[in-house]
Amino acid sequence: MRKIIVQKFGGTSVADTDKIKNVAQTVIKEKNNGNDVVVVVSAMGHTTDYLVKMAKDLSPVPSSREMDMLLSTGEGVSIALLAMAIQAAGYDAVSFNAMQVGIMTENVHSKARIVDIKTDKLKKNLAEGKIIVVAGFQGVTEDGEITTLGRGGSDTSAVALAAALNAERCDIYTDVEGVYTTDPRVVPTASRLDEISYEEMLELAHAGANVLHPRSVETAKQFNVPLRVRSSFKTDNLGTLILGVDKMEIYKPVTGVAADLSQSRIVVCDVPDVPGQAARIFGKLAEENISVDMIIQSYARKVSNTNDIAFTIDTADIDKTITTLNSLKKELDCGEIQVNNEIAKVSIVGAGMIDRPGIASTMFETLAEQGVNIKMISTSEIKISCLVNKDDAKKAVKALHEVFGLSCSEVAEVKGDLPDV
Amino acid sequence: MRKIIVQKFGGTSVADTDKIKNVAQTVIKEKNNGNDVVVVVSAMGHTTDYLVKMAKDLSPVPSSREMDMLLSTGEGVSIALLAMAIQAAGYDAVSFNAMQVGIMTENVHSKARIVDIKTDKLKKNLAEGKIIVVAGFQGVTEDGEITTLGRGGSDTSAVALAAALNAERCDIYTDVEGVYTTDPRVVPTASRLDEISYEEMLELAHAGANVLHPRSVETAKQFNVPLRVRSSFKTDNLGTLILGVDKMEIYKPVTGVAADLSQSRIVVCDVPDVPGQAARIFGKLAEENISVDMIIQSYARKVSNTNDIAFTIDTADIDKTITTLNSLKKELDCGEIQVNNEIAKVSIVGAGMIDRPGIASTMFETLAEQGVNIKMISTSEIKISCLVNKDDAKKAVKALHEVFGLSCSEVAEVKGDLPDV
Repeated sequence: MRKIIVQKFGGTSVADTDKIKNVAQTVIKEKNNGNDVVVVVSAMGHTTDYLVKMAKDLSPVPSSREMDMLLSTGEGVSIALLAMAIQAAGYDAVSFNAMQVGIMTENVHSKARIVDIKTDKLKKNLAEGKIIVVAGFQGVTEDGEITTLGRGGSDTSAVALAAALNAERCDIYTDVEGVYTTDPRVVPTASRLDEISYEEMLELAHAGANVLHPRSVETAKQFNVPLRVRSSFKTDNLGTLILGVDKMEIYKPVTGVAADLSQSRIVVCDVPDVPGQAARIFGKLAEENISVDMIIQSYARKVSNTNDIAFTIDTADIDKTITTLNSLKKELDCGEIQVNNEIAKVSIVGAGMIDRPGIASTMFETLAEQGVNIKMISTSEIKISCLVNKDDAKKAVKALHEVFGLSCSEVAEVKGDLPDV
Repeated sequence: MRKIIVQKFGGTSVADTDKIKNVAQTVIKEKNNGNDVVVVVSAMGHTTDYLVKMAKDLSPVPSSREMDMLLSTGEGVSIALLAMAIQAAGYDAVSFNAMQVGIMTENVHSKARIVDIKTDKLKKNLAEGKIIVVAGFQGVTEDGEITTLGRGGSDTSAVALAAALNAERCDIYTDVEGVYTTDPRVVPTASRLDEISYEEMLELAHAGANVLHPRSVETAKQFNVPLRVRSSFKTDNLGTLILGVDKMEIYKPVTGVAADLSQSRIVVCDVPDVPGQAARIFGKLAEENISVDMIIQSYARKVSNTNDIAFTIDTADIDKTITTLNSLKKELDCGEIQVNNEIAKVSIVGAGMIDRPGIASTMFETLAEQGVNIKMISTSEIKISCLVNKDDAKKAVKALHEVFGLSCSEVAEVKGDLPDV
């Protein structure tokens, strides 16, 4: 049986008709390798921004149902154009939106989760030798409502399609050449990883390496879909393969270093030390759909018998968080609520950490040598994160990258649009 | 039971967000009249041109299936934006594309005909008090393929929805103020008709009065849906009501005068006078989907025993027609094929013609007085058309408009984008 490869191209890869022609060539190359190809595309370049702007002209808070109707048209354009480009190159192609395929989601607008993908239409068209172009980012509910999958949605569409079709691999084409040991703009000697495990990739993603959205990696891990991150523009470069840790050939104690500058720290001061206080705070934040990352509760002070509870959130959620906490203030009988958004979370990630002791102490010593003050620490089996001052993030990343031997001899060519560190 | 009004707004009426806000107000006004409202919209302004341009960049002949996928996104944008604008004004609204409603068509791309419209979802949402915004121009096949309805498609969508919902009326909002006795740019004293019958409107439409596409008028006639053509910008003007001739209060012998400059005349010379020749020609043209309008076959010449067969076609079909006729030349054993695109078809239309003799002779005399040579004549029960030189069209229309008493005392304000005469 022929193997199925799912390819995904983001908005910058299909930003204009010339770029769409290039994508068609990449698709055809895979088809000529003897594989069946399903291509997932996002909306062209700035289409989404343009649509959002018109919506905001009409309504300060457009309904999320109508926003989904509106935004889903963006992929409608790019799938049809890519199918035409493939046809013009002499290959049989057909485009489908999510409703036509049956990419079924929950009945939630703007950030729905995929619950099922119908494969009959896809399999039938692949059997007819067609290249299939599918709209990413969108889904449909049982009632025929159009939904969108939220941030990283097209990557998730691609991985979910690969899982549903039992594909050989899912190739995510992007404007970076793969996953690096750290941001090459901060550390020019950062090296591209040939392989990385899902777990490491997830920790790196959560730690601020914006190559892939964690959701897509989680889905790939869940269904054991090998995922390749590779460049849309340098297609001879194989990029980075993300796969199960059991399938990896070797792994270093530390695979990558990342900094996340998008978090803020909140401290709820002087919370009386009675049971259920933490549950009150984090239960309420969860209700409001605010994700909390690092959490530290200090030992109760003997005199006042109060705790300080500190945690980090996405800076975008600051206002919502403060409103929520203020509404709890009486119930908690707590003191001041402090906010600090001049922080960064610096993390080291590596599946090899587990059976090699001393990694954490090396990290702390290295930061101390650099005069970097650690405000909070959190650890998982394969990650250690330290909260530091934002101004210290760069030098922390550089020193950690060096001390764990991640630098390559060549200086990486810096590409793409990673967040500034 | 509440009455249902279907409203349709074309591309110029929703060309930008300010215009969409105006449309929302017109919709809300009808809702406030105590009616249930279903609104059909086209793609915004030049969206379609923009999409077609990108398609042509990618492929000289894009597949019609993918063109339909592409073009249908245009209405996807305008329905969502209009629903948002209505919501922002404090009214409940919901948008649906053709697939969501179930506007079922034949399995033909780029000019599908509607075969059925599901009304459950529409009725349910109207019962909940919602204003419904539906994508015009598009449909879906039983297999879930997206189709488009071709020229005049959104008008047809609106009329078909009105028929399916048993609506009180279908209001076509456009950039002209109604149906005029003739093109006001040619005859400044042209008057707006308060009422016109479906049959007259059809003859006027076929005769070149581009206010409504004949398909939508035919559908309205078939299902007896009263149709009102009115201005998007002057909404206090009631425009022209198009309805069954039996429901009209009065009708003049001649309702309107129109000129169609988009036709060309073809003459197939010296066709041997044996049976089946006309069937051969027009059968083959029909196979090629070429519409033929006026047809004249001269008396067989005694000496050569041959006919000349003359007919008119849409000028856009000239190349296809000549290719088709050339392929028949041997079989027909005919002479030269002559083409003349310097012609115009001038028509007078009126349901009152039937029982008032002398209308045709008045027309011919009037043209003769103006020195206008008549090349071909065709008649129906409520229309007489004469083929004349293109250069004579203006003076023919003016004279006929005058002689049949159609001029009003006021000079019409010229609006919109009627074809040049």
